[in-house]
Amino acid sequence: MFVKIRKATTKDVPEILNLIRELAVFEREPHAVEVTEEELLQDGFGENPAFEALVAETKNGIVGMALYYYRYSTWKGKTIHLEDLIVKQANRGTGIGKLLFESFLEEVKKQGVRRAEWVVLDWNQNAIDFYEKYGASILRDWHLVQIDNQTIMKNSK
Amino acid sequence: MFVKIRKATTKDVPEILNLIRELAVFEREPHAVEVTEEELLQDGFGENPAFEALVAETKNGIVGMALYYYRYSTWKGKTIHLEDLIVKQANRGTGIGKLLFESFLEEVKKQGVRRAEWVVLDWNQNAIDFYEKYGASILRDWHLVQIDNQTIMKNSK
Repeated sequence: MFVKIRKATTKDVPEILNLIRELAVFEREPHAVEVTEEELLQDGFGENPAFEALVAETKNGIVGMALYYYRYSTWKGKTIHLEDLIVKQANRGTGIGKLLFESFLEEVKKQGVRRAEWVVLDWNQNAIDFYEKYGASILRDWHLVQIDNQTIMKNSK
Repeated sequence: MFVKIRKATTKDVPEILNLIRELAVFEREPHAVEVTEEELLQDGFGENPAFEALVAETKNGIVGMALYYYRYSTWKGKTIHLEDLIVKQANRGTGIGKLLFESFLEEVKKQGVRRAEWVVLDWNQNAIDFYEKYGASILRDWHLVQIDNQTIMKNSK
C-alpha cells in the first residue's frame, strides 16, 4: 500500500475531525469532542496557526495524522507537543503510526527544540511500548490537572 | 504587605529566571534549567511571544509568578496551560499563590477558552489540595511522555 506523509491543508479538515472523533471513542470519551470544522479551519490554517498536522494519505483518503504545536518549558525553552497520533482502526498494524511518528520526530529535529512531549493513557500498553522503543521517557510522577470554563465561572464572583 | 499582580515585562526577566531556578530545586531537579535570560527575553517578549507571565511584586521586588501559554486541544479547541506557579520560599503561606492563581483564572476567563490545564507532582499534596478547592480535576490515568533532542538524534539515521 502506498502511503504519503504530508502537511495537512484546509481540504483535510473534515477527515481530520473524523479521526479526532474516532480517537475520542478509543479513549472512552466519545462525547468529549466539542471542536468544530470551522474552529479547526480557523485555528490551524489562518495567521499564527495554533497547531500543525501531518497526515497519512492513501488512495482511500486520509488514514492517520499527527497533530502538534509549540509549548514553552521554563527549563528547556521551546518544545513541541504531540497532541494526537491517530491511525484509523482499519489501518492499524500496517506501520502507518510508525511512519507518522517518525515524520513527527523529523519535524522536531528540524525545529531544533530541546524536547518533544505528549501524554499516554496508563492502560495503553501498546502505545507505551511503542514510545519506549524510541527512547522516550514515561513520567509517572506527574498528574495532569484541568479546569473547565464553567467551573471557573461558578467559582468566581 | 502590599502585593501588586501585574503582567511581566522585560525588566522582570532576571527575577523570573531566579524563580524558575528556585522551583527546579523544590522539584528536586536543580540542574534541569537550561533556559537563559536571553532566551526568556527573546521567546516571551518579542513578536508572537511563546508565553506570558503575571508577577507578584512587593516593595522587596518580585516574589512570585504565574507563567502560561496557549495550547490546542482537538477536543476543546484553544486552551491555556499554566506552566509555572511559583512563590518565593520566604513568601509562602501569605496568600500570594492564591492571588496569582486567581489572577491566572481571570485571564483564562478573559480569553474565553474552554479549559485551562497544568501538571502537578504526585507527592505535592499541598498543591493538589489547593487546586481541588477551585474545582480542578486531577487526572491520574494519563502519563507524560518526553523525548529530548539527543535521544532523537541518536535514534535516527
